[in-house]
Amino acid sequence: MSAPRHDPDQHRGAARVAMVGAGQLARMTHQAAVDLDVELRVLATSPDEPAVLAGAPHRFGGPGDWEALSAFVAGADVVTFDHELVPPSLLRRLEELCVPVRPAPDALVFAQDKLHARRALGEAGYPVPAFAPVEGRDDVLGFAAGHGWPVVLKARRGGYDGRGVTVLAAAAEVPGDLGTDGDGGPAWLVEAHLDLAAELAVLVARRPSGDAVAYPVVQTTQVAGICRHLVSPPELPPATLRRAEELALEVVETIGATGVCAVELFVTSAGAVLVNEVALRPHNSGHATIEANLTSQFHQHLRAVLDWPLGPTDLVAPAAAMVNLITPDASVHPAANLPAALAVPGARVHLYAKASRPGRKVGHVSALGPSATEALALASEAAAILLAR
Amino acid sequence: MSAPRHDPDQHRGAARVAMVGAGQLARMTHQAAVDLDVELRVLATSPDEPAVLAGAPHRFGGPGDWEALSAFVAGADVVTFDHELVPPSLLRRLEELCVPVRPAPDALVFAQDKLHARRALGEAGYPVPAFAPVEGRDDVLGFAAGHGWPVVLKARRGGYDGRGVTVLAAAAEVPGDLGTDGDGGPAWLVEAHLDLAAELAVLVARRPSGDAVAYPVVQTTQVAGICRHLVSPPELPPATLRRAEELALEVVETIGATGVCAVELFVTSAGAVLVNEVALRPHNSGHATIEANLTSQFHQHLRAVLDWPLGPTDLVAPAAAMVNLITPDASVHPAANLPAALAVPGARVHLYAKASRPGRKVGHVSALGPSATEALALASEAAAILLAR
Repeated sequence: MSAPRHDPDQHRGAARVAMVGAGQLARMTHQAAVDLDVELRVLATSPDEPAVLAGAPHRFGGPGDWEALSAFVAGADVVTFDHELVPPSLLRRLEELCVPVRPAPDALVFAQDKLHARRALGEAGYPVPAFAPVEGRDDVLGFAAGHGWPVVLKARRGGYDGRGVTVLAAAAEVPGDLGTDGDGGPAWLVEAHLDLAAELAVLVARRPSGDAVAYPVVQTTQVAGICRHLVSPPELPPATLRRAEELALEVVETIGATGVCAVELFVTSAGAVLVNEVALRPHNSGHATIEANLTSQFHQHLRAVLDWPLGPTDLVAPAAAMVNLITPDASVHPAANLPAALAVPGARVHLYAKASRPGRKVGHVSALGPSATEALALASEAAAILLAR
Repeated sequence: MSAPRHDPDQHRGAARVAMVGAGQLARMTHQAAVDLDVELRVLATSPDEPAVLAGAPHRFGGPGDWEALSAFVAGADVVTFDHELVPPSLLRRLEELCVPVRPAPDALVFAQDKLHARRALGEAGYPVPAFAPVEGRDDVLGFAAGHGWPVVLKARRGGYDGRGVTVLAAAAEVPGDLGTDGDGGPAWLVEAHLDLAAELAVLVARRPSGDAVAYPVVQTTQVAGICRHLVSPPELPPATLRRAEELALEVVETIGATGVCAVELFVTSAGAVLVNEVALRPHNSGHATIEANLTSQFHQHLRAVLDWPLGPTDLVAPAAAMVNLITPDASVHPAANLPAALAVPGARVHLYAKASRPGRKVGHVSALGPSATEALALASEAAAILLAR
């Protein structure tokens, strides 16, 4: 599986990391692993996944396939993830194999189960949106009676990039088939629809020892639930940014996560900062760190899960921006538009070698600038060229 | 050889670059190729070469093996190099295969043949050190009679990192066996030993169309002919730096090179700027560009040989430094020292997955800083830890 080393005694010390998943996060982690001479292997489901095409050593197998998982982690120093799709029961069996699982199953469940995350973080005293578990239509109606319409209906598990999230404006829009999930618990939750001034994300890296660092806050802009672009630093009051960073560090400590985590936060129009969701892996909101910060999130994730010293997170420029390349349909070929896009000075293009499909994230563009506005203008200009027909 | 793409119609436009060689330059070019979704393949001589271990699609074959070379370049959009070892006769045959060779054989000879480079650049009017071809001992003695001792004896071909270069202090030190080379021409040249104030390097990227950009000048420090570290910008008069940049751009234009080139220059204690050598590929003197400049030399090389728009070359910090990791012997294992080195805040470590051997370059460390001195101190601190026994 991994490339042969002909002279193992002569080349000691390379750490071995097994990452379940082979998407763009694993692809960019592979690039960082090359810098650090970390032997990263990925678990892929198909030979055309981004990390496999980038040359990461790989095995094939699904995240729910115990035989594949257990063979995959054999001999690794640590196992980590580019997605949240390994079932909790298998995560616990992985832990019994004497390979450290980072983040641990008890932490990962915060990303796998939105209801658990809301409950546990709310009970721990963190500000979270008002919510209720949903086992049927009446639960939504009852919540709306107390909090008013519209409300937000969210799938408890498996939603991402806007999938599994619906805004309901009135009782007539509530689906009738809101059943329970496989465990017999609620499959949905309902939340107050907040009047938002901004959505923020804070990356935090945390070592097993507990050492943690936060990255400068980024402001994300979603369209139909999917992040379109982000800037850092946001044009928001410094106290709001400090509060976001403080909450993010505390949340990650509460969860007991290791590795890189993204804490997504809401800033309401009244100025309150609420904890929305957590991702326990490198995250789309951290892609600009490759060029914009002293340590990229991919290097940092490897360092954190290996329990190595964390790197500084400072921005190297006054501001940075990142624009996702989301293809409208299969007629758009960003790789073919790349030469034209590179004429935009300072646009840093990352393509994931993914075929275009409606709504699919196939790459991103980062840029530095004297201000967030200027960095975003530059990245947006290149992104528009890449997505041209 | 290359990773399979299951849905070729859905993923159009990826350019195909064939790079002869699979050392650390190819390794870092592979990382850049992943960003740009360029299908880079490398020609390796062994499975433990740095680019192969980084997952670059590869074939095996030596740079002098026509069958391997011609099979290797089939289907590529362009062929380029991470070393200068392909014999000129085979470079010319490659050109006949209808795959553009960038840089072209007439340009590459400037890096392959130091006597040709000195002659041609001298005849074109560039300031170069006084030199003479050497076909025997008398040529050295005659040159020294005119220019004084010491003199510098250089192998016409194949020298690098101090190999093939000797300072001779007196007639008694001149070897007796200075024969001709395979073509019957001089195998050596002799040069004046200059009193140097500084050694500089300027990276230049040039497209086939002629567009070219220079990177900010770096100052290199050699020990026993091998670059130990560099800083940018150098603490030298602005006029000297402007002259170095101007000369570098003109030299690359004269040579007609394409891709990234490094022009190495001497600054004499009298303040004159002379052209020393050229390398027609990404170069050790450009490694800090990965983190320190708006476009890394590896991205830039791909862009240049593909005739794509070149990127801006500005430093992202006031200053940058790079320290080479040169192992004293096989007892030093930088990968094992990596966690300790990463405790140096802001040290950016790149390991090439090469076994340690006396005098072997196995990685480098870059750092940004408010001044060249501070950046160099930081990179040096991490490098010392990596090289500890």
